[in-house]
Amino acid sequence: MFQSFETQGNRAAGPARLAALRARMAAEGVHGFLAPRGDAHMGETVAARDQRLAWLTGFTGSAGICVALAERAALFSDGRYTLQAREQVDAAFERVGIEATPPSAWLKSALKPGQRLAYDPWLHGREQIETLERACAEVGAELVPTANLIDAVWEDQPSPPMGPLAVHPEALAGESSAAKRARLGRELAEASRDAAVLTLPDSLAWLLNVRGSDVARMPAPHAFGLLRADGTATLFVAAAKLSDPVREHLGNAVEIADPEALGPALDALAGSAVLLDRASCPVWIAHRLEAAGARIDWGQDPCILPKARKNTAELEGARAAHLRDAVPLARFLRWVDETAPTGTLTEIAAVEKLENLRAQTGALRDISFDTICGAGPNGAIVHYRVTRETDRTLVPGELLLVDSGAQYPDGTTDVTRTLATGPAPEGAARAFTLVLKGMIAIAMARWPAGLAGRDIDALARQALWKGGLDYDHGTGHGVGAYLGVHEGPASISRRGMVPLEPGMVLSDEPGCYREGEWGIRLEILVAVSSPAVPEGGEREMLGFETLTLAPIDRRLVVPALLDPPERAWLDAYHARVAAEVTPLLDDPADRDWLAAACARLAD
Amino acid sequence: MFQSFETQGNRAAGPARLAALRARMAAEGVHGFLAPRGDAHMGETVAARDQRLAWLTGFTGSAGICVALAERAALFSDGRYTLQAREQVDAAFERVGIEATPPSAWLKSALKPGQRLAYDPWLHGREQIETLERACAEVGAELVPTANLIDAVWEDQPSPPMGPLAVHPEALAGESSAAKRARLGRELAEASRDAAVLTLPDSLAWLLNVRGSDVARMPAPHAFGLLRADGTATLFVAAAKLSDPVREHLGNAVEIADPEALGPALDALAGSAVLLDRASCPVWIAHRLEAAGARIDWGQDPCILPKARKNTAELEGARAAHLRDAVPLARFLRWVDETAPTGTLTEIAAVEKLENLRAQTGALRDISFDTICGAGPNGAIVHYRVTRETDRTLVPGELLLVDSGAQYPDGTTDVTRTLATGPAPEGAARAFTLVLKGMIAIAMARWPAGLAGRDIDALARQALWKGGLDYDHGTGHGVGAYLGVHEGPASISRRGMVPLEPGMVLSDEPGCYREGEWGIRLEILVAVSSPAVPEGGEREMLGFETLTLAPIDRRLVVPALLDPPERAWLDAYHARVAAEVTPLLDDPADRDWLAAACARLAD
Repeated sequence: MFQSFETQGNRAAGPARLAALRARMAAEGVHGFLAPRGDAHMGETVAARDQRLAWLTGFTGSAGICVALAERAALFSDGRYTLQAREQVDAAFERVGIEATPPSAWLKSALKPGQRLAYDPWLHGREQIETLERACAEVGAELVPTANLIDAVWEDQPSPPMGPLAVHPEALAGESSAAKRARLGRELAEASRDAAVLTLPDSLAWLLNVRGSDVARMPAPHAFGLLRADGTATLFVAAAKLSDPVREHLGNAVEIADPEALGPALDALAGSAVLLDRASCPVWIAHRLEAAGARIDWGQDPCILPKARKNTAELEGARAAHLRDAVPLARFLRWVDETAPTGTLTEIAAVEKLENLRAQTGALRDISFDTICGAGPNGAIVHYRVTRETDRTLVPGELLLVDSGAQYPDGTTDVTRTLATGPAPEGAARAFTLVLKGMIAIAMARWPAGLAGRDIDALARQALWKGGLDYDHGTGHGVGAYLGVHEGPASISRRGMVPLEPGMVLSDEPGCYREGEWGIRLEILVAVSSPAVPEGGEREMLGFETLTLAPIDRRLVVPALLDPPERAWLDAYHARVAAEVTPLLDDPADRDWLAAACARLAD
Repeated sequence: MFQSFETQGNRAAGPARLAALRARMAAEGVHGFLAPRGDAHMGETVAARDQRLAWLTGFTGSAGICVALAERAALFSDGRYTLQAREQVDAAFERVGIEATPPSAWLKSALKPGQRLAYDPWLHGREQIETLERACAEVGAELVPTANLIDAVWEDQPSPPMGPLAVHPEALAGESSAAKRARLGRELAEASRDAAVLTLPDSLAWLLNVRGSDVARMPAPHAFGLLRADGTATLFVAAAKLSDPVREHLGNAVEIADPEALGPALDALAGSAVLLDRASCPVWIAHRLEAAGARIDWGQDPCILPKARKNTAELEGARAAHLRDAVPLARFLRWVDETAPTGTLTEIAAVEKLENLRAQTGALRDISFDTICGAGPNGAIVHYRVTRETDRTLVPGELLLVDSGAQYPDGTTDVTRTLATGPAPEGAARAFTLVLKGMIAIAMARWPAGLAGRDIDALARQALWKGGLDYDHGTGHGVGAYLGVHEGPASISRRGMVPLEPGMVLSDEPGCYREGEWGIRLEILVAVSSPAVPEGGEREMLGFETLTLAPIDRRLVVPALLDPPERAWLDAYHARVAAEVTPLLDDPADRDWLAAACARLAD
């Protein structure tokens, strides 16, 4: 099993650990220390060694930061985690909502003139440090880089992960690493840059056509890279992670060096113009380059955009991965249909069942994120992750929300279905249908090239808005090609300012939640496509190709709320699912179930 | 008649005038001069005296700039005016598309190191000058403020306008000037600002509850203002524009001074913090304040947002103005119906008829912009303004597009209707219906507070996009309360980044154009409202109230393309128009026509 159901944080240990950190701060002559959730690679999953925020505070959410001062300490988390932070974190830590009061605002009242706030320069990007520096300056305090003071007091801190790398075949990547490096090298040269430092694992994985295994869910290696304008590169990675086939694959144009060699390699860039990613590159690297006399060009990691634009082979891989994933999904949905009415279905059992069915494909490398499986009121907790403590036995009739995904060698999936288990709760079918209308609106959308996700987000919400409803999350995030299930830079949301381009794969997942009662979310993955200009049309438009193949629970659809094009979409989608997936199902009972689930909508 | 149909520019005079300007440049020891279209008040309409761009180049479009160098000269205009610029401007001026090649880009290749490019600091805002300064610096040239070199060679330049001011009654304004000044003064004080310089005529008109008559279409005075944190103000305005009632209305808290006194008044702000509008305040004012030792706080004119949020009285005025305007509109539409089939209807006759009918209300102060009346192919020219040369006699069957508006004491209107005059041209009814779907989508939209016009623009376009169609203009602009028909800061467009707030009045005007054949646009004005939460809803949403009352040509609607809510909207709209407007029509034939035009849509 990839997924575990244990509670990771240790709330009770928080005060003692905070005291140890404070003692260390005093010994170092600083008045505070920052403990962000992220590691030097700014990934969504962090290795056990890097779970400093959880170790210190007990908080296990996927985003947050602790500011520990001598007298006060605060854990900052966003609205998704307000309740979780209250449950996981001891009152020795103030629990602060990061939207209303970001650390920079809190520090202005908590810091005193002359104080020194320390941070680990490996764990912060430039934008974050600039904001904090301004806040410190405003109160006459100082932000100073130090060694990591948590590592200094965390006695049984795990070692760094040593997950092996693997070759990502060119048949799946669709472009050789040499070609990618040459292309990006030319772009560097055209912008008068000599080199770029790469610190994002998925950027390195994409550029070098490798995959990694240092952290769960994200098949990319913890490593650093240097790409030069001539297309050569150096990969700074622990030798223990490398096999002969990987060394051979990387070839002569990619030098391999120990991570310890990164500093000296940066020193050697004296006089060069070096591109660093403004959002994610640890300021340690910038400090070292500045000291060496390099010219830093702040911009965007050059792999981010080309990685987001999937090529023909990657899109073929995505289609194959989704078709493969459709088999365990259909079998799982049938299992829920048969099990839920017995009153014995638990959330953990459902998660285990789905993962087991996916493993039976023989191609499951990992799940792409911890499955969100919420029965009844747990479905309303948008980022719910079931644990042994919270596991709920579904009461027949409650909605079951299951948001899950798989990492296959040829693609990453992410799919949400909300299922009826009896007569639907009050208001649920109407809300489900409004959510479905939003999902279909995105799936059927057309728009001229140049628009960003923000420009089409309203299409997913308009039906809900008209009903006085909405959801407090984005409509869609980018998805990698056997890489991160959350991949930038494009999104369909108010923050989605990057133009949508052909090949980008995004999720389409509107929702509706009634606290304490039910949660509804429907999610498909879609790829930006270039459909033919329709009869009578004059302009090229972009559109979406639907990748995900899993029936949508027709028992929760109110047909009268769908207009004819929406009905036609739903019927055509179900016909496609039946046609493509039925031949892959061995069990006649599965085939019968799928045929019934994919029947045309009744009036 | 407010509207004239003469061609204003003098293409043939361009080369001689350019030569005179160049001689003057040489005499002044500069190598170039900038001739923007705007005046010191950055208004859309400029006085005869300020039509320097038209005088020099012949170009009469509403936006553009000429850069005259010793060897080269270029007229920059946007895509709306590409054809017009080619027709109006002599080849002595390069005609440059401003989107692809803004002046700053052109200057980089045209200017030589050491050259001095002169500009009139009254005619440029800070953002524009900064951009040009950077461009000059890149080639080693210099941007220098001078007196206006065109004024120096324009022998028969008209005098500045001396239009009288009038009191805008508090019953229509809904808030006294004293209350507005006190409120904005407090905001200045809270931001540690001592004063704000106001240079936008409509800001002054709104703040002081006056209207002006210096330029056509915009009932606001050419003047400058100084608002202090204590709520007092100085109005710098020519005494000839002031009557005793206006002086009395302004009272003791508003000092009146000659425009010549502005400089010394700025000098007296030494040591003060002064707010200037970053987009519109002439840099002359900034230079003077800097020389005096004031601290300049660049921001937004403090009147812009409160002026955009219409209060209860202003919304009542808008409703009354639209109801009044509905009478001439209905009579005009009937007249077109009866005249067009005769084959004698000309564009100019239509414009004159509509203005005459509006004048018969007895309340018409001005038209709110030159009517756009395009028959057949002329309808496809988005910013078409008919002249004696272009006037077209409508061939029955052609579409007629009429976009017009009125300035009444209680409100500003802006309405577009596209009319059938026989069997519709190929593709026109389908396009009309798709445009109508977009207009209705905005009229019926709901969205949570905080969103900007950009976030809902797609709703107006989605139906067209699905048909491979689109329009190259925004969906909607803000509209003033007996002020500018184009009013910031909100808009429904890709540039609409300002949150929509209750009371804002905007246009809703999607379109579709087939070059050389027809143009279709439908426009209503809408006010942002706070509708009740619907049954089953949980959240407050914003929405729109429709202000405009004029039938939409049902002969061009393809009923099968409308979904039931759209049909219901159209039928309810027509029922409302009939119910509200019929009682105001004296002529039984007008009433009969309106009843037929507002009938329910047939299947």
